[in-house]
Amino acid sequence: MDTINRSIPAARDKLLFTPGPLTTSLSVKQAMLHDAGSWHFEFNALVREVRLKLLVLAGVQPAEYECVLMQGSGTFGVESVLATTTPPGGKLLVLSNGAYGERMIQMANCLRIPVIPLRFAEDKTPEPNVLSQELAKDPSITHVAMVHCETTTGVLNPIEPIARVVAEQRRTFVVDAMSSFGAVPIDFTRCSIDYLISSANKCIEGVPGFSFVIARRSHLTACEGYARSLSLDLLGQLKGFDKNGQFRYTPPTHSILAFAQALAELELEGGIPGRAARYQRNHAALLEGMRALNFKSYLPPEIQSYIITSFHYPEDPGFTFEKFYRSLSDQGFIIYPGKLSQVDLFRIGNIGRLFEADLHALVGAVRSSLAAMGVRVNS
Amino acid sequence: MDTINRSIPAARDKLLFTPGPLTTSLSVKQAMLHDAGSWHFEFNALVREVRLKLLVLAGVQPAEYECVLMQGSGTFGVESVLATTTPPGGKLLVLSNGAYGERMIQMANCLRIPVIPLRFAEDKTPEPNVLSQELAKDPSITHVAMVHCETTTGVLNPIEPIARVVAEQRRTFVVDAMSSFGAVPIDFTRCSIDYLISSANKCIEGVPGFSFVIARRSHLTACEGYARSLSLDLLGQLKGFDKNGQFRYTPPTHSILAFAQALAELELEGGIPGRAARYQRNHAALLEGMRALNFKSYLPPEIQSYIITSFHYPEDPGFTFEKFYRSLSDQGFIIYPGKLSQVDLFRIGNIGRLFEADLHALVGAVRSSLAAMGVRVNS
Repeated sequence: MDTINRSIPAARDKLLFTPGPLTTSLSVKQAMLHDAGSWHFEFNALVREVRLKLLVLAGVQPAEYECVLMQGSGTFGVESVLATTTPPGGKLLVLSNGAYGERMIQMANCLRIPVIPLRFAEDKTPEPNVLSQELAKDPSITHVAMVHCETTTGVLNPIEPIARVVAEQRRTFVVDAMSSFGAVPIDFTRCSIDYLISSANKCIEGVPGFSFVIARRSHLTACEGYARSLSLDLLGQLKGFDKNGQFRYTPPTHSILAFAQALAELELEGGIPGRAARYQRNHAALLEGMRALNFKSYLPPEIQSYIITSFHYPEDPGFTFEKFYRSLSDQGFIIYPGKLSQVDLFRIGNIGRLFEADLHALVGAVRSSLAAMGVRVNS
Repeated sequence: MDTINRSIPAARDKLLFTPGPLTTSLSVKQAMLHDAGSWHFEFNALVREVRLKLLVLAGVQPAEYECVLMQGSGTFGVESVLATTTPPGGKLLVLSNGAYGERMIQMANCLRIPVIPLRFAEDKTPEPNVLSQELAKDPSITHVAMVHCETTTGVLNPIEPIARVVAEQRRTFVVDAMSSFGAVPIDFTRCSIDYLISSANKCIEGVPGFSFVIARRSHLTACEGYARSLSLDLLGQLKGFDKNGQFRYTPPTHSILAFAQALAELELEGGIPGRAARYQRNHAALLEGMRALNFKSYLPPEIQSYIITSFHYPEDPGFTFEKFYRSLSDQGFIIYPGKLSQVDLFRIGNIGRLFEADLHALVGAVRSSLAAMGVRVNS
């Protein structure tokens, strides 16, 4: 606390231009000024409401789908799906064009689940035809998993073309929609998604502490006895909610109070279309400003999400990321480093409680930072 | 949020007399009014400080022990130890006299780790001699796990007599000190503990969101390749901290800010002795008040913790737990149901930001509730 307070003025935190945790509204944070009993009926009613609202947001039927909250980060949610729903003798195929695809491969290895990595270049989206061939070749593959918005680069991997192949070949379909759900429309019915995972502190603009899984009820309830972890047993968690509306193990009560408020604020903004519109405006303001400073974005525009953007380092040798990052931090802006080994990139997210004016302010700070570093800018 | 706000006046939450989540101070909750970047150096410095302070609180040498924070509830922390540190072919013995011992047995089953349950009555503490015989009989047992304060009943299981047996027989020693660490002194050196697990929202009086493990560094670093889960890989988490001070996966940033404040408030109260003294006063006030209302506690006093207490239902047929619970809730007090199948009990915790006056107020509300239910009280 002291460490944070010494460097952050109490009235205003540094703005987070990251893939999350994000800048949230003060009202979301203020919802955490209460202590709720995790066994208490008032809290359980709130949890029920949150789970229902997420199903409505997903556009699915509560009879067909369930929303299961899972303690921990988004990774815990993804692992809970793989650990709980892969039958003994099951096999996973992971479409990977970035770190989050690779993470699912790592998970499968830890869980001793056979896994086929199907890798694509980081600046390309997965090819449905290649997937189709792989699945036809190997009928023992039970699950196909993909990442919707791969924040490693910012690429938005289209779900529908992949979904068609998975449905044709009748495999279980898992979508990591961590940084897209709530701001990018996803058609559950058309895509026949069995499990979609997202997190509290992404586009819904809550604080971190838990993830959630939108799960096809009939599939999940057929997974009895598969769970390879007690904590991450997604079916066990659902059965807890079914039984008495409670989490099996202590939930992050304050994060859930904040999330309920965040959901209310999402509704006020006009739901997914409203939020998408703001993020699109943010993204346009960012791109326009950065281009004017001669920054080049990494991805072709047609596969670039409006969530997070990777930029190449300027070619000027005076540029170092460390100095750039510190200078922006001193001005109250926190950006994100790159994650690729081959290309020098940094990333700027435009989600969270950020508005066009904040992106303009960031671009202004980028300009000052470059000037202070003596990096030449064409503008 | 609405649901909570409709029933809880904004200025005052209901007081939580539970094993956690607990009533916390307003200043702890206010520490969450900030958004911190989980990759940012300021936040990482805070995480480092928190980890060091926990080692100091444990009274161990930072060279010999490490403190690893783990997202999720305490159960996630316990499972991270079992999943990461049991070698292939390892075997676990669990001393169980309540639900939390049973939970470790369940975990081992999910993780496909061979497990020997060594069960004792719920109103008795584990017997070192029986353990000694079991270990002598089976040299393939690699790990012994016990629960310090078993909140199922409130029994405090002494660590030292068990520790002596485990040390003599040279097994790995795991202690679930969820609801005791920070308020009950634990001698790490004398007990030769390899892994101790506790949680943010127990005696340190933070909010839920993560657990922490005090781990013998030399043991943990020798567990390479054992992890049965990526998210719960305790060694992976340590290597993340070692590498760059960061969590591998998104941490509950707000819970950690709150925890740093909670640690500062624990220091102000005089550390473990100061907190123990307050909880002992709370517990004495509770027992005195409840006895005056003719309630009988379940455990013999010599094994009763000063953390949480189980009380028998009154024999009067007018008493129902549901009515009693609701009536106390209406008066602003949340207690906890029992967890034993054989005996009708309810539980009252006295930890968290509670003081003697709060226990007196609770006892007053218990008296009113009984009167309203027409339950006769000898007093």
